[in-house]
Amino acid sequence: MKSDIDQLMFNNNVDALLVTGPAQHNPYMTYLTGGGHLTYADLIKKRGEKPILFYNPMEREEAAKTGLPTKNLSNYHYLELLKESNGDHIKAKAMRYQKMLIEVGLTSGNIIIYGNADAGESFAIFSELQNLMPKLILQGESSNAMLLQAMATKDNHEIQRMRKMGTITTEVVGLVADFLTSQQVKDDVLVTSDDKPITIGDVKNKINLWLAERGAENPEGTIFAIGHDAGIPHSSGNPQDYLRLGKTIVFDIFPCEAGGGYFYDFTRTWCLGYAPDEAISLYEDVHAVYQQVMNELHLNKRCEIYQDRTCDLFEARGHQTIRSNPNTLEGYVHSLGHGLGLHIHEKPWFGRSASDKDILAPGVVVTIEPGLYYPERNLGCRLEDTVWVKPDGKMEILSQYPLDLVLPMKRK
Amino acid sequence: MKSDIDQLMFNNNVDALLVTGPAQHNPYMTYLTGGGHLTYADLIKKRGEKPILFYNPMEREEAAKTGLPTKNLSNYHYLELLKESNGDHIKAKAMRYQKMLIEVGLTSGNIIIYGNADAGESFAIFSELQNLMPKLILQGESSNAMLLQAMATKDNHEIQRMRKMGTITTEVVGLVADFLTSQQVKDDVLVTSDDKPITIGDVKNKINLWLAERGAENPEGTIFAIGHDAGIPHSSGNPQDYLRLGKTIVFDIFPCEAGGGYFYDFTRTWCLGYAPDEAISLYEDVHAVYQQVMNELHLNKRCEIYQDRTCDLFEARGHQTIRSNPNTLEGYVHSLGHGLGLHIHEKPWFGRSASDKDILAPGVVVTIEPGLYYPERNLGCRLEDTVWVKPDGKMEILSQYPLDLVLPMKRK
Repeated sequence: MKSDIDQLMFNNNVDALLVTGPAQHNPYMTYLTGGGHLTYADLIKKRGEKPILFYNPMEREEAAKTGLPTKNLSNYHYLELLKESNGDHIKAKAMRYQKMLIEVGLTSGNIIIYGNADAGESFAIFSELQNLMPKLILQGESSNAMLLQAMATKDNHEIQRMRKMGTITTEVVGLVADFLTSQQVKDDVLVTSDDKPITIGDVKNKINLWLAERGAENPEGTIFAIGHDAGIPHSSGNPQDYLRLGKTIVFDIFPCEAGGGYFYDFTRTWCLGYAPDEAISLYEDVHAVYQQVMNELHLNKRCEIYQDRTCDLFEARGHQTIRSNPNTLEGYVHSLGHGLGLHIHEKPWFGRSASDKDILAPGVVVTIEPGLYYPERNLGCRLEDTVWVKPDGKMEILSQYPLDLVLPMKRK
Repeated sequence: MKSDIDQLMFNNNVDALLVTGPAQHNPYMTYLTGGGHLTYADLIKKRGEKPILFYNPMEREEAAKTGLPTKNLSNYHYLELLKESNGDHIKAKAMRYQKMLIEVGLTSGNIIIYGNADAGESFAIFSELQNLMPKLILQGESSNAMLLQAMATKDNHEIQRMRKMGTITTEVVGLVADFLTSQQVKDDVLVTSDDKPITIGDVKNKINLWLAERGAENPEGTIFAIGHDAGIPHSSGNPQDYLRLGKTIVFDIFPCEAGGGYFYDFTRTWCLGYAPDEAISLYEDVHAVYQQVMNELHLNKRCEIYQDRTCDLFEARGHQTIRSNPNTLEGYVHSLGHGLGLHIHEKPWFGRSASDKDILAPGVVVTIEPGLYYPERNLGCRLEDTVWVKPDGKMEILSQYPLDLVLPMKRK
């Protein structure tokens, strides 16, 4: 939780955090500022102190809304720095950081840098800054970033927001199910009343619309993949594809609050009208593993053990897994889930990034999403729900929705 | 244009580009791959050769859809590299880049890095890679990035897509105008039929909905700011604010194709019902400068001269400008416009980032957006259209919409 940050900084011998970029769609900045329409800002948080927000003067009122102490970036006279550095923006930006850091009293110590930015520009600016301030130790982190450790556990306000996103998500999923099953069928293909085949593109447009109506957006798109594409875990589905009865559809939807806030993540696998035997058999294996793993989730256990357990269970049912064959494209080919919050993927990790800090701690929110994939047989199945590990150790799916495979068509 | 990249690389003595990150909402990667649902990828383009796309095996079919030569990231055995580096993901990622670069024959020369990523992680990984491969010169660029130079000039297909976004944008603006002027008024405040005041939040929800219906999204939000907020150029407007007659409303809308494609950018200033004299006077100054500058735009002229010209014109009308007073918060406080494309702001630049390469070259698309701001007087006005510099040198606003200040209310 946010209140853990100073302790985490102390434990990791970190003197300050430097966060850069916009306040929207930029999880670390959103987390520390609360969001808002800041197209570019910098933030410096010293250990034990409130973060200081450096804002563009055009955005001074948006910056003030955060309630943080603020400083105006124009105080550092960028144009003069640009002249001094002969028009080199990289050097001028590094010099501006130097002035900002000196002003807040940071001339030595460990600083971790965060925030969405251009990879090359960041490399160049912070290399230059490191040269300018050799007593600072500038660092960057990967998937086990310290700040992710704080973000992994959610407070009640965050849970409320995620639960609301869950409600929106399952409402929209229900609307999609209603829409599909209300259509007419011609030669096993869903068609409109004037005989026009309905496409995956049509369905996705409706999803975007229904999400927007509810104050949500889906910046990462939606997976709605049928047949062969359902057998490729991250195929988003071909917008031109028709909707055919009896084919597995993997529908994975992961919207966030409009403006780039908290995510929800949810998957169902559907067969319209009826399911062929091999789809039912695949579904039953996934469903059984989903139920088993859900029942076994336990407070403070390591996430990795559930990935192992899932491999055990699938292997016992005769499927290959990425554990039994790391290069397999068939069977169980991904990790069981991931933490969820302002990032669509964050700590705790279940897969290869997992460490002993990735546990089902009180307050974490994780997805549980076992799946099986057989692209050559045009088959795929995944079931996913988002689970909150409550402070009392109970597990709660943040928004319930039936797990059914077959969606019966309403018109005969 | 994309076809200029090799020549630009030659002129700048660049041997390769390395682009990282997702293919959506990541302009450089979108530009070189055409987009698609790739949540993480790397791309290496050597001068004179096609880009090679390195994909996550779960996304192999999405990668194949790009039509580029591809390589599977799992060929580089990340888990082994992670073991070798004692669990340090930064080192393991640098070692993976090293293997990828060696495989494509890049062991020396100048490489420019691009792509959305975490600033700190990028700094750390590429610093490590630079240590591992000292004969390479890894570079990053700022606002005058070489690839931005190619992206500045659009081909006909890109113009088509931007024009379509323009049509969607002005359609939605028209719907907003209709919605507002159809409401009832009570004590100068817009109210619904059951006397509930309409808020800016309500209007923004409708905008998101109408955009989604048309296959667009607005990842950066919308500016819809009334009264005092209209006087702050980048205040996005307070969602709780009511809509009052006779107050200036700055409505700046900048949506993009769903999934993170081409943007459009458009602003009108409205007064509902009537406009007070001081709003009319402000509007007339902005309108006159808008018309004058639009008329003076000329093929291959430097963009900077129009910023200067705008300052001349506003100063002649008695306003402060950022040229006459760099710290002013009143008058004309921003630059005249910017290039537009896969970025909401890109080359050519009109403001402080402008160089002699920022010209109205054939094929560029720019915004022209003069404005005046008086927050203490609760007044602001900006008019903005998106202009295509056609290959024949003619200027074309990509989607026309009336410039009117006053929107008469339909009910009396």
